[in-house]
Amino acid sequence: MRIEGVPASAGYAEGSLFDLDQPPAGYEAKAGAAEERAALEGAIGKAVGRLAALIETADGDAAGILEFHIAMLEDDALGGPAFASIASGQPADAAWRAALDGEIAGYEASDQDYFRARAADLRDIRDQVLRALSEDSEAAAPPGAILYGEDIAPTRFLETDWSKGGGIALRRGSAASHVAMLARSRGVPMVVGLGAAAESLTGVALLDAERGGIVFSPSPAEIEAFRQAAASFADRQGAARTFLTEPAATKTGTAVRVQVNIAYPTDVEGIDIATCDGVGLMRTEFLFGKALPDEETQYHAYRKVLEWAGDKPVTIRTVDAGGDKPVPGFTVEETNPFLGLRGIRLSLARRDIFRVQIRALLRAAIHGNLKVMFPMIATPDEYAQAAALFAGEQAALAAEGVAHRLPPLGIMVEVPSVALAPEAFADVAFFSIGSNDLTQYVMAAARDNAAVAHLNSVRHPAVLRLIAAVADFGREKAIPVSLCGDAGGDPAAIPALLEAGLRDLSVAPTQLAMAKAAIADVAV
Amino acid sequence: MRIEGVPASAGYAEGSLFDLDQPPAGYEAKAGAAEERAALEGAIGKAVGRLAALIETADGDAAGILEFHIAMLEDDALGGPAFASIASGQPADAAWRAALDGEIAGYEASDQDYFRARAADLRDIRDQVLRALSEDSEAAAPPGAILYGEDIAPTRFLETDWSKGGGIALRRGSAASHVAMLARSRGVPMVVGLGAAAESLTGVALLDAERGGIVFSPSPAEIEAFRQAAASFADRQGAARTFLTEPAATKTGTAVRVQVNIAYPTDVEGIDIATCDGVGLMRTEFLFGKALPDEETQYHAYRKVLEWAGDKPVTIRTVDAGGDKPVPGFTVEETNPFLGLRGIRLSLARRDIFRVQIRALLRAAIHGNLKVMFPMIATPDEYAQAAALFAGEQAALAAEGVAHRLPPLGIMVEVPSVALAPEAFADVAFFSIGSNDLTQYVMAAARDNAAVAHLNSVRHPAVLRLIAAVADFGREKAIPVSLCGDAGGDPAAIPALLEAGLRDLSVAPTQLAMAKAAIADVAV
Repeated sequence: MRIEGVPASAGYAEGSLFDLDQPPAGYEAKAGAAEERAALEGAIGKAVGRLAALIETADGDAAGILEFHIAMLEDDALGGPAFASIASGQPADAAWRAALDGEIAGYEASDQDYFRARAADLRDIRDQVLRALSEDSEAAAPPGAILYGEDIAPTRFLETDWSKGGGIALRRGSAASHVAMLARSRGVPMVVGLGAAAESLTGVALLDAERGGIVFSPSPAEIEAFRQAAASFADRQGAARTFLTEPAATKTGTAVRVQVNIAYPTDVEGIDIATCDGVGLMRTEFLFGKALPDEETQYHAYRKVLEWAGDKPVTIRTVDAGGDKPVPGFTVEETNPFLGLRGIRLSLARRDIFRVQIRALLRAAIHGNLKVMFPMIATPDEYAQAAALFAGEQAALAAEGVAHRLPPLGIMVEVPSVALAPEAFADVAFFSIGSNDLTQYVMAAARDNAAVAHLNSVRHPAVLRLIAAVADFGREKAIPVSLCGDAGGDPAAIPALLEAGLRDLSVAPTQLAMAKAAIADVAV
Repeated sequence: MRIEGVPASAGYAEGSLFDLDQPPAGYEAKAGAAEERAALEGAIGKAVGRLAALIETADGDAAGILEFHIAMLEDDALGGPAFASIASGQPADAAWRAALDGEIAGYEASDQDYFRARAADLRDIRDQVLRALSEDSEAAAPPGAILYGEDIAPTRFLETDWSKGGGIALRRGSAASHVAMLARSRGVPMVVGLGAAAESLTGVALLDAERGGIVFSPSPAEIEAFRQAAASFADRQGAARTFLTEPAATKTGTAVRVQVNIAYPTDVEGIDIATCDGVGLMRTEFLFGKALPDEETQYHAYRKVLEWAGDKPVTIRTVDAGGDKPVPGFTVEETNPFLGLRGIRLSLARRDIFRVQIRALLRAAIHGNLKVMFPMIATPDEYAQAAALFAGEQAALAAEGVAHRLPPLGIMVEVPSVALAPEAFADVAFFSIGSNDLTQYVMAAARDNAAVAHLNSVRHPAVLRLIAAVADFGREKAIPVSLCGDAGGDPAAIPALLEAGLRDLSVAPTQLAMAKAAIADVAV
């Protein structure tokens, strides 16, 4: 029986099912309160140790999540109620569970999305300590298994041995989750939104994370077809690798620029700059994760990437907070955050914070080939205001005698109004189409809502028509146009994007090879 | 000093300020628990009586809100904790306040927007009973005053004597609130989102609810300019009334159809059918307010309006739940409800509920000139599915021998994808442009979010371009195109809409005269 879901990380896995939702094994109560207290202290220490070991092999984004978990575990306030319960006679596991469940309920009741989302991290921490308490070593999934359940914790992903293959199949989950991001960067097949539960969790299953589905209790014919599809995918991946080191070109020899999207300065460590045409999108939200960053911190982060890229361009996007990226102390709670005070709107509303980023960008510009773009521009007035702030800070740095350079200033094309009336933006230095947001607005279907995922397609004629209009306008006015949404790295979408007239795509680093291979297959 | 805000109901008011946020006057404790109990019972009864009296003069929407308040007051569970506190020695006012505050906190902590929004109703009820307890008759605003404060309760609006003029100026508030709706239908000037507080609440203020602003402590020159603007507005309104009974036409004699939007069947009681060209939009969300309506209830509601309209068309929109219109037991909680499972998406996901509405519409169709349209259509597949459900229920009614007729089926044009690629909808019977939603998606700016209100304009070139594209396509294919958003009744937007090629607008009943007057001023 095949159940359809949504692909979150492309690939194929054939293997036995491992139930993510099985209750953890039992804990044996100790002789007295002092022993219980020691057991809980030991388990917390063990959990911290495991997290620290995971950080050693984790890259930027994963390390950030794990550091956040360690900081919570090391906060005495978290364990306080558990130790108090132990002193009054409770066993360590029940005391810890009750204390954390109380804390989790508090987060879940928050009317701020940001805090509700943190409840998942607390559940992860709760279960790590419970596992350490019961020394539950058999809870690890066997190598090559398909992890199946409601949802999956980031540490569970990081603790799993993926060297023998395997995959992830979730009844809920989201292609925008932390784990989905990790799965894509590690090449672990993952499908979300499967909905219905499997009737039985025994036996082998087939995970098709290219189209998005899972087959339980497959027939021989299904296994045969699945292996052919998996082999075809592997062939395409293998073939793709041969494209990695060459400049991208279509079947008819048309050159296509392929840049990379990065989210953290450390992302560049795994990329050979020779394999890409620069950075088409460097996000800066990572700087705004826990507190508002100072000018020096930002300056060094930007400079690191600029120096790595040499003379190739690095396009840094000013902070795109809000929407699905809340920042405590900066963004505001809204009923429809995707249609709210986000991106450049928020930066223009909080100029004190925006000016710090502008100064850091102006100073970093002397260290490479910097371009700067503004997210969520809807009207020419917003661009004019942002450009004026750059001019103002430039004048201030000049008066202070600080080294700096004014980079070319461009805009994201993600609000439909810009693509529909581009003539008002004839004076920007470049356009970068944000296909994720553009699609969700044109289709009025949120990109993180599984209930409307069937409507959210960049290949809808309306979306492609807007992309073609922007490409045409750019060609006519000699304004460079690129695209930096997920569609740029999707082999299924690339033909349509090139036919719409695009010749510059920016993709996730792990998608570089496949994107170049897909481009070579298109006759434009 | 002038403070800028957002107009919520056009008009001008000059008058003394009345502070909405002043604490209610005191309550005198009684001799014993029995007397306290009697006092609270009396106050609740008095509050119910006042609400019932208000209902007598209220129209459909206001009556619905008041009936909901009475139902809550008459629910013994609400007062229970207060009577218990009185029995244990508390005075009636403190007991009632504590009981209601506890209940309000529960609603405010809900993670469902719908229940959080109900907290405002509970606060209103709490204060009505407290006012009745303290016989606080001096809390009524003097006739002609400008009511100024953080926000305003619906009953406060309904209890106020507006016969001598006056207006409403709110630091927060929303143009989409219940009170704003009431203010527009009664012609009471109202401005929201003023933000900063007045330095002093003494003296006269000038409320400009046409452009949106308030002037405190005005200078003689400001008063002079204000009175000229107010006189000009009154002249325009007076002139408009002479247009009401005539068919609408532009300055050059081009005929324009002007229909009305209605939200409740009772809305038609105040409208002379001779003054309009039919009903361009009859909403059906009122039927889904508290519980899911049965077929008979719906049939009679539709039939009432169809019979009132005679041979003029009545365009009924299938239920547009979701977005900012949650229905318990039907809609789902979402992070971005405007981009979620709403309108036709929800109806297609809940066909059991949709089929009941379809049967009621098919049966009502024999009583007049019915047209049916689907909200939030994004793809031709959605239209095809909805039309197939109509065909299926039609066949079922025919088999049962029940009288019915298949009405023309059209679609709302509010998702940008439809306006961008209308050729996929060449087989629909008519288009109705929903300018409110279309604008919020094209500009990526929620229509109920004051922080992005500066971006939410139907007159942005991108929005007008899409409207013109739909009008052109309709003319070319002989598919009728109308517009039923707020812009249709806005004299400032009407010239641009007619220039975009529209010749059929549907407006709020109170806007009929002004819309016809504005049309007569345009040379197209």
